[in-house]
Amino acid sequence: MNGAQAMVGTLADAGVGVWFANPGTSELHLVAALDAEPRARGVLCLFEGVATGAADGYGRMAADPAAVLLHLGPGLGNGLANLHNARRAGTPIVNIIGDHATGHQQYDAPLQSDIAAVAGSVSAWLGRPVSAAEAGKAAAEAVTAARAGGVATLIVPSDVAWSDGGATAAASPAPPPEPVPGGTVDRAAAALTGGEPCVLLIGGDAARRDGLEAAGRIAAATGARVLCETFPARLERGAGVTAVERLAYLGEMAAAQLAGVRHIVLAGARRPVTFFAYPDLPGDLVPDGCQVHDLGADATGALTGLADAIAKEARPAVQVAARPELPSGALTGETAAAVIGALLPEGAIVSDEANTSGLWLPGATAGAPPHDWLSLTGGAIGQGLPVATGAAIACPDRPVVCLEADGSAMYTLSALWTQAREALDVTTVVFNNGAYAILSMETTRVGAVPAPPEEGTITRDMVDLSRPALDFVALASGMGVPASRAHTAEEFAAQFGKALAEPGPHLIEAVVPPLG
Amino acid sequence: MNGAQAMVGTLADAGVGVWFANPGTSELHLVAALDAEPRARGVLCLFEGVATGAADGYGRMAADPAAVLLHLGPGLGNGLANLHNARRAGTPIVNIIGDHATGHQQYDAPLQSDIAAVAGSVSAWLGRPVSAAEAGKAAAEAVTAARAGGVATLIVPSDVAWSDGGATAAASPAPPPEPVPGGTVDRAAAALTGGEPCVLLIGGDAARRDGLEAAGRIAAATGARVLCETFPARLERGAGVTAVERLAYLGEMAAAQLAGVRHIVLAGARRPVTFFAYPDLPGDLVPDGCQVHDLGADATGALTGLADAIAKEARPAVQVAARPELPSGALTGETAAAVIGALLPEGAIVSDEANTSGLWLPGATAGAPPHDWLSLTGGAIGQGLPVATGAAIACPDRPVVCLEADGSAMYTLSALWTQAREALDVTTVVFNNGAYAILSMETTRVGAVPAPPEEGTITRDMVDLSRPALDFVALASGMGVPASRAHTAEEFAAQFGKALAEPGPHLIEAVVPPLG
Repeated sequence: MNGAQAMVGTLADAGVGVWFANPGTSELHLVAALDAEPRARGVLCLFEGVATGAADGYGRMAADPAAVLLHLGPGLGNGLANLHNARRAGTPIVNIIGDHATGHQQYDAPLQSDIAAVAGSVSAWLGRPVSAAEAGKAAAEAVTAARAGGVATLIVPSDVAWSDGGATAAASPAPPPEPVPGGTVDRAAAALTGGEPCVLLIGGDAARRDGLEAAGRIAAATGARVLCETFPARLERGAGVTAVERLAYLGEMAAAQLAGVRHIVLAGARRPVTFFAYPDLPGDLVPDGCQVHDLGADATGALTGLADAIAKEARPAVQVAARPELPSGALTGETAAAVIGALLPEGAIVSDEANTSGLWLPGATAGAPPHDWLSLTGGAIGQGLPVATGAAIACPDRPVVCLEADGSAMYTLSALWTQAREALDVTTVVFNNGAYAILSMETTRVGAVPAPPEEGTITRDMVDLSRPALDFVALASGMGVPASRAHTAEEFAAQFGKALAEPGPHLIEAVVPPLG
Repeated sequence: MNGAQAMVGTLADAGVGVWFANPGTSELHLVAALDAEPRARGVLCLFEGVATGAADGYGRMAADPAAVLLHLGPGLGNGLANLHNARRAGTPIVNIIGDHATGHQQYDAPLQSDIAAVAGSVSAWLGRPVSAAEAGKAAAEAVTAARAGGVATLIVPSDVAWSDGGATAAASPAPPPEPVPGGTVDRAAAALTGGEPCVLLIGGDAARRDGLEAAGRIAAATGARVLCETFPARLERGAGVTAVERLAYLGEMAAAQLAGVRHIVLAGARRPVTFFAYPDLPGDLVPDGCQVHDLGADATGALTGLADAIAKEARPAVQVAARPELPSGALTGETAAAVIGALLPEGAIVSDEANTSGLWLPGATAGAPPHDWLSLTGGAIGQGLPVATGAAIACPDRPVVCLEADGSAMYTLSALWTQAREALDVTTVVFNNGAYAILSMETTRVGAVPAPPEEGTITRDMVDLSRPALDFVALASGMGVPASRAHTAEEFAAQFGKALAEPGPHLIEAVVPPLG
């Protein structure tokens, strides 16, 4: 057994069988080892950012890692942005990067680079087996580390893969979450029952049904408000699920949501801060004099314990089933959201990178049948299509809906090809407003008002995607995904309904006005 | 004057006016500053790898830096592979990455990451101004550092950009190249004139006309053979230029080229090594007992001095003008190369990422009118289209021909959109063979023969691009570039000639067999 076979077998033994891959020469023994392992599935991606984003989507839905296979430092670079998003999501991923053979690294061959330095920026764990004998053990450690919640990176020299002497190893269970410091839960309980304005800020695993229900019970018993972090990795929502409002992206609006709050209890969420810095505005969203209580890594467990202690008889307020009417007339972000809310199927997985066009989505879909909502955790655009791809591999029996902004779609568009190749049931909506609309908005907010003499020509150009217009129907067709274009709400409803009804991937270009 | 204006003004004063940009919120004051600077031009790219590759193409042709504008760590990640190629090419680039405001970095906001760690892997120089007062000086230092030959990275917190107190600064001239250690040139001269088999291995700036002519004179006088590194950043060639054979990509063939050689004189090239490692094959291509003499950073100067000393009267063997006949019949890599050789216009800039489909290109184009050949310096695919884009911006009066493999094209395809937007005269040929053909070849070479029971299904899948087929005509049309498809040599000749004759970008999908 060579090192590659030991690694592939170790992962398969641990239940890690899906490999999102864009291999090169230095990874070919790992590819050959996949062929010898019936439990392994290789999913080819045409760009590494698709592979890493797909692994993020897979891990969010499966709650267990997929493997990624990347080619040396440049392959890692191409996959880095979506590993950044995965890191912020706490997604388990086993991230395998082939390297030159140990003896070749002295030669400064063209593809030589400092892989570990780059990988360190996104990895919760980093390993580099130096012999075939170590390969299986390193793979097992990577699975364990990934299961603790994060990107576990293995850098694998090609001679480690091709040399004999490998042996599989067993991955350990994930270590239990670190316990909350003593007294924190008691102080949170005292705050929640003390009569002062409190917010329970939900994130991570606590944004799933059990955590939300516990939070809802606490809210019902104490009057605390429940908010969810702005960009949850996976939020369960819809009719019958405990309803939760999200903290706003815009700092001004988030500050308004938190105004007057005396206690913030963090349940899987980070301390709230603004997404960007703005001149003369605070970055920290915690109001003056407000205390913050962090329930720690096992937020769902802590919330459940709190609810049992202080809200034993309470019932959470759950979302009432309600769908918008199908709208007619102009297609806008608002009417598109109404169509989506009216038609979203039960059990849907929504990959949301609609950005400014998505403003109306939370309201329009709140009362739809139960579904999962995956959002842009790390702010690195180009996540939506790959995450949808991986989620569809993880959950082949559930419909996946990808809501995508035009500018963001162009980063990792070749995810469509993988969707076509794997016949994944993904309905992608690209909101084509011909602009990086969020930057138009942010230009004013950061006070970057262009000066004469050019009167803002470059500033306008840098947010303009209309010259030339992007034709997403042609782009999708070029990668084997059936596509159509909608200019009215009626057209969009007909196309969206048809795409949901048919198996396999579809793309709908929704032509909408900027910030409309 | 704020820090952003100081930086933009400093760069403009130094002649750095082209900015290949994919900005975000943290870079908007730099964008606004571009508007106030009439000498600045902003070229929007839809993906950072296009921006960095375009800056590489610009720098190779202009021999002076363009600026790149990237958004935080994930933007740098997306641009990293082509910065790797630029690093290997020694291309001058001023690489500007916006960061969160200094006071915001403590908050671990969603886009926070270790930018410096990632940038360090590709940068010859790294600066991080901490106040507006330092911004202009830092920009000047970056220009000087880039001109020494490499990627100079500036990490710019947004408050440094937006705060007042900036002042422009003057960039110094590039420092002179480090002198060659004493005696090296004398030993090289002795080797070249000593009667033993010698190879002059050319690379870097020495692959341009002056260096090649000096090498050709030395070869004519001494009998030394001249070879060029496998992937030169910019090779001048064609009728009337000193002819030079390239060192082969395949180690076995390169070893044959160097068999029996007793002295290798490096003129701008690195010591020859194999691209990848292979089991039981050496990585170092220098034959046993062969001495290596490195002429150092000023290779062209050293070569010219050597030629004046030992080849005063010699005349170099220059390439005779000769073009292939226009072929007919099946379109293959070979007949496509003949068409390109028959029609390549004088002064063309060729961006070559044709990979296996390009095997016949060097021979077929050797006697074409003089042209520049830009190759894949760092082995990170996805370079060809962006480099062509930047070269066209640097040299608006010269035709640019981009020869691109299908798999590589999919990494940075949105370069086509920038070509359409800027009306660049680029003729792109995508060789569509439906495969990562080089990996099919390498699978055998590295001995990664798949084992039962799956009989190589995954190995075959990982090199297959035919399921579904990629339609590059649709993909190009979707980004505003007129496109056509050729199935025969006659069709390809007609379409290639028409594309060259018309201004603006065009794409031709050349349907060819794998390794045919």
